[in-house]
Parts: sequence; structure tokens; C-alpha cells
Amino acid sequence: MKSDNVMSSFVSLPVFRSDSHGAASVNDRVAVEEPLEIRVGGRNLAITMRTPGHDAELAAGFLFTEGLLKSADKIRSIVETGNQVSLELTTPDDSLLERQDRRFATTSACGVCGKSSIDSLYATGCTALPQGTFAIDADILRKLPAVLRTAQAVFDQTGGIHAAGLFDSQGKLELIREDVGRHNAVDKLIGALFLRQSTSRRLPALDRMLLVSGRASFELVQKAAMAGIPLLAAVGAPSSLAVETARRFGMTLAGFLRDDRFNVYCGPERIYTPPRQ
Amino acid sequence: MKSDNVMSSFVSLPVFRSDSHGAASVNDRVAVEEPLEIRVGGRNLAITMRTPGHDAELAAGFLFTEGLLKSADKIRSIVETGNQVSLELTTPDDSLLERQDRRFATTSACGVCGKSSIDSLYATGCTALPQGTFAIDADILRKLPAVLRTAQAVFDQTGGIHAAGLFDSQGKLELIREDVGRHNAVDKLIGALFLRQSTSRRLPALDRMLLVSGRASFELVQKAAMAGIPLLAAVGAPSSLAVETARRFGMTLAGFLRDDRFNVYCGPERIYTPPRQ
Repeated sequence: MKSDNVMSSFVSLPVFRSDSHGAASVNDRVAVEEPLEIRVGGRNLAITMRTPGHDAELAAGFLFTEGLLKSADKIRSIVETGNQVSLELTTPDDSLLERQDRRFATTSACGVCGKSSIDSLYATGCTALPQGTFAIDADILRKLPAVLRTAQAVFDQTGGIHAAGLFDSQGKLELIREDVGRHNAVDKLIGALFLRQSTSRRLPALDRMLLVSGRASFELVQKAAMAGIPLLAAVGAPSSLAVETARRFGMTLAGFLRDDRFNVYCGPERIYTPPRQ
Repeated sequence: MKSDNVMSSFVSLPVFRSDSHGAASVNDRVAVEEPLEIRVGGRNLAITMRTPGHDAELAAGFLFTEGLLKSADKIRSIVETGNQVSLELTTPDDSLLERQDRRFATTSACGVCGKSSIDSLYATGCTALPQGTFAIDADILRKLPAVLRTAQAVFDQTGGIHAAGLFDSQGKLELIREDVGRHNAVDKLIGALFLRQSTSRRLPALDRMLLVSGRASFELVQKAAMAGIPLLAAVGAPSSLAVETARRFGMTLAGFLRDDRFNVYCGPERIYTPPRQ
């Protein structure tokens, strides 16, 4: 993999800070947001607004979680150049763009609703998560947001960035990715697993859980389900469709994981409470 | 305008609530997330995941802030049907879809970067904001998050939804819209102004400011600039491209507006501090 991507994740800016005592000129750090173009076989596939860094993982994770690329073996090369990631496949896949269009068209033709969104996930090959591959102690789960926050390299400097962390059942943080877009943070993390760069693990990650710093939307449940992750926890609130989708795929969904508590919206069997001493 | 849209903005669900004392089964309210298809002249233009409610405003605001529709006079009808909004224009505009494609293609052809994102804004007709149309007392500005929070109808019930509020220079809240997607909340609000339904005001809203409950991304600055709103304030952090875009269009951008303080990233001349008594 070739990379000449030397863009940074934050910039320092002069700002006026104002409170009830008055205003002062100070320097503040701001998270970088720039467009990234994902190209496959020389053709534009998507543009996403992201924080520079781990762009190849982001592109690979996006293609995988959208159901457009099943195996990393199909990738001949990934080249990062500034705000562009170009993938070449081992065999030319002219149908990739059409597949994306068709998926959209199918959703549209059969009526637009939460159910059709879930059905389109099945259509991309996403299957229900098995039982018995992952379980975590509620006391350990409650401590994970502090672990994620401590590990957040960019957040501490800007206060403006989302994090996604992959944990094992003992609460050990294995991988963390950050981005101004929460979907990008998750794509970067899953893309890393997909490319097997930052970890020796492969997908599906049936014995791992994912913690996200923001809210849990349909999109994040979709990405976790595609990666075979059986438990998704969010520091923020879930949406109705996130809950419905998690339930349909047999995923455990926890929300409001903060201040030493959480809510479980479905799949409570993967979270256990050991007998009190 | 015809509407048979009776979907609600939240649902009630049974959840397990767990804290260090144990777990209990309770009912919790969750913000609804459902896809909305925007159709123009019988053709699919876009699908966005949104919270049901004010769908016609969302569709109109989206078309306006994306530079695809300049005037509400061009709309012959807007019909809301479940998860679909269908617009018919007074004169058929076959070029609307192509315009959107072309805009994307142009961005791609001239290289992808923050500057090209800003340039594409100029290309859609967005112009610099004039001076002297809006100014606000710093003491009033610091109080606005509390005003927005009090007015938030859905947030109090779910904790999972973004709000966008339009304020005048005296800190009076004129209009509020909510959504699981922060860009949707802003599109609903600007769409309301565009359609002149909920207010007698017209665009550009040169003597108003916009407050958003989350972070300020490029996309939100873009939408505010298209609506001619000279001051954007965010409860959360801005991104680098948000700051750069606001600066290029002469907009005032404030961030971290919470806990009785804020940062000004550009355009401080629209925020004044009266002499202390």
C-alpha cells in the first residue's frame, strides 16, 4: 500500500473565548473535516466528509459495510493520495457501481420504510448473529466509556470528534478509530479488520463488541451487523430503527452507556450480572 | 398542501435499565428514525433517514439548501404520503436530477478538497453575507441553549434528537425543528422559511441567527449560508472546514455555546459586549 497522506487530524486557530467575565483571544484546536473521494477501477464511487487519517481503511470499510465488496482478496491495490483513495480490484468489477444503483432502486421500488431498509440489508448478504459467541459482565460494560475516552487521541484536543472502539469480553480495547463523522469512525474500524492491518483478527468479529461515542442510528447497526459484531453499545440514544434492526438481526443494543449506567434495548442475554459478594 | 402523514416522532419501548445497584425493566421513549424518499416530477431524487414530521419542509429545505430549487413559486404541489414527499413543479424541470449529478461531477473533476467544496457552494449561487444586518449581545447569546432546550418537544422524551432554532437579535426563539439528523433539523427549519408556512419571514434571513444543538460541520454552514443567515452558533465543536467556509462567506461562527460561555471562530463583529453597569 502506497501512502503520501500527511494531512493532520486537527488544526490550531485563534478564537475569541467569551464568558460572563468578558472575552479573551486564545488558540483553540479544531478537528479537520475534508472531503474524501473513493474511486474504484478509475471511477468515482462516493464522496464522504471525513477527518484525514486511515483513509484506506475508511474506503475499504465503507465498501464492505455497504455490501459492495465481500473479500479483501479482491483488492489488488489501495492508494491514498491527499483526499482520494483509489482501489484497483484483482478482476475488474464494472458491476460495482451498478450494484450500488440497483440496491438503491430496489429500496425505492418496493416502497420506502424501515422494513425495506432492513430488507435491503438482507439483500446485501447480512445474516442474523449467532448466540453464544460473546457475553460481557455489566460491571465491565459500564466502565468502557472511560476507557474509550482515555484512548481518544484527537478528542482531548478538539472536543469535536467521534470515536468507535472494539472491545473483547474482558473490556480490553483492541482498536480505536476517530472521525468527525460517526459512520466514518465505524467504517475505519471495520475497514481495519477487513484489511487485517492493525489486528490479526478477521471478520466476522463474533466475539467482540463495538462502542460508539455518539448515538446509535440505523446506519451504525447496519455496519456492526455486516461485520458480525453481536453487541453494539452507544454513549448516546438509539433510534427506533436502530432498535428494530438490531432485534431483527439478533444483535444486543445498549444505549445511554454513561454515568455508570446503561439501557438494553434488545438482546439482554449477552450482558450478565455476576452474583454480588 | 395535502398530508396524510400521521407518523409519530417517538415510540415507547420496554428496556432493561442497569446501574451499579442492578437491573430493572422499564419503559423508555426512543426517537423515530425512518427513511424519507424525496421525489420531484415522479422521479426519485434522494433518500434521507429522518424523524417523521415536517416532511414537506424537509424536502423543500433540502432542495433549496442544495441549490436545486431557487424559489418556492416553482412548486406546484407538495404531497406527503407516509415516508414519501412528492413535489410537482410549475414547469417540468428534467434538468434537476442532471444538475445534481453535474454538480457532483464538477467537484470531482477539479480535484477534491475543502476549497473545491467551498467553490461548489459559490457555483450554486451562494454569496457572501453582508455586514450590518444582525448583531447580538454576548449575554443574550449565552442564554440561548437553555431557551432551545426548553422548547425541545421531543428531546425531553427521548434524549436522542437534534434541534435547530431560529432566533432574532433579542434572543427570541422564532422557529424550532427537531430530527435524529442534525442536517435534517436545519433543512426542516430553512424549508419552513422557504415555504413561508410557519412564519411570515422570507429568505434570505439576514437579520436572524441559527442555533444547533450538536456540532457545526461544513454541511450546516453551507445550509445557513444558502439561507443568508449571518450567524451560526453550535452547542458542540465546529470542524476546520466549517470555520473556513464561514470565514469565506463572511459568516459569524460560534461553537461550544454552553455552560454560560462560547468560542467565536470568525466574524466576532456581530457579537458585542455592552459596557458593564
